[in-house]
Amino acid sequence: MEPRKFPLDEKAIPESWYNIVPDLPFGLEPPLNPATREPAGPGDFAPIFPEEIIRQEVTTDRYVPIPEEVRETYALWRPTPLFRARRLEKALGTPAHIYYKYEGTSPSGSHKPNTAVPQAFYNKQEGVRRLTTETGAGQWGSSLSFACGALGLECTVYMVRVSYDQKPYRRIMMQTYGATVHASPSDLTQAGRDVLAADPESSGSLGIAISEAVEDAVKHDDAKYALGSVLNHVLMHQTVIGEEALKQMELAGEYPDVVVGCVGGGSNFGGVAFPFIRENLKGGKDTRIVAVEPASCPTLTKGRYVYDFGDTAATTPMMKMYTLGHSFVPSGIHAGGLRYHGDSPIVSALVHEGLVEARAYPQNPTFEAGVMFARTEGILPAPEVTHAIKATIDLALEAKEAGEEKVILFNLCGHGHFDLAAYEAYMAGRLVDLEYSEEEIDRAVAQIPG
Amino acid sequence: MEPRKFPLDEKAIPESWYNIVPDLPFGLEPPLNPATREPAGPGDFAPIFPEEIIRQEVTTDRYVPIPEEVRETYALWRPTPLFRARRLEKALGTPAHIYYKYEGTSPSGSHKPNTAVPQAFYNKQEGVRRLTTETGAGQWGSSLSFACGALGLECTVYMVRVSYDQKPYRRIMMQTYGATVHASPSDLTQAGRDVLAADPESSGSLGIAISEAVEDAVKHDDAKYALGSVLNHVLMHQTVIGEEALKQMELAGEYPDVVVGCVGGGSNFGGVAFPFIRENLKGGKDTRIVAVEPASCPTLTKGRYVYDFGDTAATTPMMKMYTLGHSFVPSGIHAGGLRYHGDSPIVSALVHEGLVEARAYPQNPTFEAGVMFARTEGILPAPEVTHAIKATIDLALEAKEAGEEKVILFNLCGHGHFDLAAYEAYMAGRLVDLEYSEEEIDRAVAQIPG
Repeated sequence: MEPRKFPLDEKAIPESWYNIVPDLPFGLEPPLNPATREPAGPGDFAPIFPEEIIRQEVTTDRYVPIPEEVRETYALWRPTPLFRARRLEKALGTPAHIYYKYEGTSPSGSHKPNTAVPQAFYNKQEGVRRLTTETGAGQWGSSLSFACGALGLECTVYMVRVSYDQKPYRRIMMQTYGATVHASPSDLTQAGRDVLAADPESSGSLGIAISEAVEDAVKHDDAKYALGSVLNHVLMHQTVIGEEALKQMELAGEYPDVVVGCVGGGSNFGGVAFPFIRENLKGGKDTRIVAVEPASCPTLTKGRYVYDFGDTAATTPMMKMYTLGHSFVPSGIHAGGLRYHGDSPIVSALVHEGLVEARAYPQNPTFEAGVMFARTEGILPAPEVTHAIKATIDLALEAKEAGEEKVILFNLCGHGHFDLAAYEAYMAGRLVDLEYSEEEIDRAVAQIPG
Repeated sequence: MEPRKFPLDEKAIPESWYNIVPDLPFGLEPPLNPATREPAGPGDFAPIFPEEIIRQEVTTDRYVPIPEEVRETYALWRPTPLFRARRLEKALGTPAHIYYKYEGTSPSGSHKPNTAVPQAFYNKQEGVRRLTTETGAGQWGSSLSFACGALGLECTVYMVRVSYDQKPYRRIMMQTYGATVHASPSDLTQAGRDVLAADPESSGSLGIAISEAVEDAVKHDDAKYALGSVLNHVLMHQTVIGEEALKQMELAGEYPDVVVGCVGGGSNFGGVAFPFIRENLKGGKDTRIVAVEPASCPTLTKGRYVYDFGDTAATTPMMKMYTLGHSFVPSGIHAGGLRYHGDSPIVSALVHEGLVEARAYPQNPTFEAGVMFARTEGILPAPEVTHAIKATIDLALEAKEAGEEKVILFNLCGHGHFDLAAYEAYMAGRLVDLEYSEEEIDRAVAQIPG
């Protein structure tokens, strides 16, 4: 049988996370305090994050050791499998070799626990008793709930009310892991009460839920807040994906010509891509790195590279990043994890400097790619990652056209078991593909206070 | 790090299925034609099954080679992982070593594709263009849909109306794999029309859906029917689970003192247990083999060992098995896959002859075990397999009591991603534990025509 699996045992779980910052051939612009517009210091983050996380956010160490308890918890599902997509290759009739790293085998079904576990660990180490966070569709909330349960912390999740009501499965999963889940806006925080006073029927938003989770952490001494994407330490934790993939590609006897990942806040993309960018920067390798986003939230492909807030409420430190403006509300596509107005400052800088290329797809072609993937490879992908699959298929067809035996690796960051309503809407022809004009984006970006 | 994963690559996928029949130290009683009560021959099965499946159903070969195309399709997810449950052991404070084989990594999330794939393969080889089947909650239907999609067959699934309406996710999964799904009773078959004529609002039953699927296959020359449990060939296909587990336990440097599986029709149980029973029968090994069922459908623990029909409509060949009577309707527990009045004839005979011991649990303690498993090991188990987990925990606590370092292996036959409503009902205290009296079972068994 031709090999399609490249298994590793837990000894191959990386011993360090890779921090790309010291290797970047350019400087990163610092986050700014939103009030003073001066560079934000550790003090700006201390009310919400533990010291070690703040240290990791700004460290210039190339490698940060992974604590043994974190590696042991990773071993519940890591190393994750790397597969060669032989049946997809055959269906496409392409000479390209397609590989995928599958992060959907984690307890919550995505790459998110890679950072949830160390965040829970460092908080516990510093005496924090409870973590707070927000969640939309529930992917991040269920990952943090699992991590807190595994490490013995309490977890409070503010879940956007519309998801809380319409998507009960993720909520129940969080509760099964032991978390307390509140529909947001709630009457437990001032932020929530203010929203409810103005609109008692509010269906909530991720921005409101963030405000509630942060307020809860700030107001309680034994609680801190945890964020699932965008920030440097989060992307660093995700590099276990790419480090394992490097070893597995070696087992496969190949090296990728292209690495593909979908991008919302940038964490699964950074996780798979940064170790390959390191190899490029070392010299000797020249892998194309492709970031894929939805056409209806085209941050990297149509956004502006400026300072903006991370949240819609304009309360976080400002970050230099590609952004559609923090007040931009992307259309209600099913790839909820990609509906973010901004992007990781590191990923943004890599795109700005030309080390990463970005492309965008409307959702109907991505679901078409997802269905083709399910029927050939068996795994039903999350709507987010169908964007990476669509790009991979296009690249494989370009290779067919050119008669080139390209090696393509993409990160299959999660399964779609909780997204089947999206597949039904696609199969029923109910999905709308929306694109924004330059004028609309100009208007949204103009809202950013200079 | 102490090892908890024992990975195999696809070269370790078994090259043969193991047929326990020739190794049994007793004869199996043949199925009977329901009309004549004479032993059923191949002709009784020819209208619904392809020749090779009928041959495998009655073969006395100890090993049946797995076709290369089936092994290649297995390689989409096989070999499945074997884990040591170190965090569960620690939570229990037991000296026992607990291992689990995890079948939830398959495309449809359970062990069912292990037989769906070869059944689709043999049908295709014999020129069948379309397979029909029934499904309740959707586990078997989605497995056959996947297998048909992967091998290029059409698939028609009759899904019990109440599940079709209330549990749309499995239906959408089947459709994503390319299957056609009808709510049963439908107006597409005489069986369905008869039911609808009597009760236009019928919410359906597995028995009705079987009748529709069989009728569809019998009336169309290019279609055959596929069954997901109970029969000898189905259990034989599942032995890849136990054969891989034997290799992985060797990697772990241990051998199980106890093997545990949950039992509905017997397929995941037979799959994990038969290779270990073979080792027992060879001599030199003395592994305890434990079959676990729900107290509300206590086939092996309270049923009678007699000839009975496989379906509620009393149309299939009669089989000698433990049964609660084919008209027995178990209470509506959430472990839908375990709600079967009968059991595999082989598993029944093994219990009857004392080679396998059976135990039963009410559903609340099994969900309690499932939640404990999710919080320690991360994987959210299907309600069916929480029965095996409960038995495993009890055995591990007995080992603690006795101070014995027992090695326990159980088959984690599927994840619970589509069963979260059941977890919610459990956490809300809404689950009822029902047990049947001997008198009730006597009355149900008395319905079987002598």
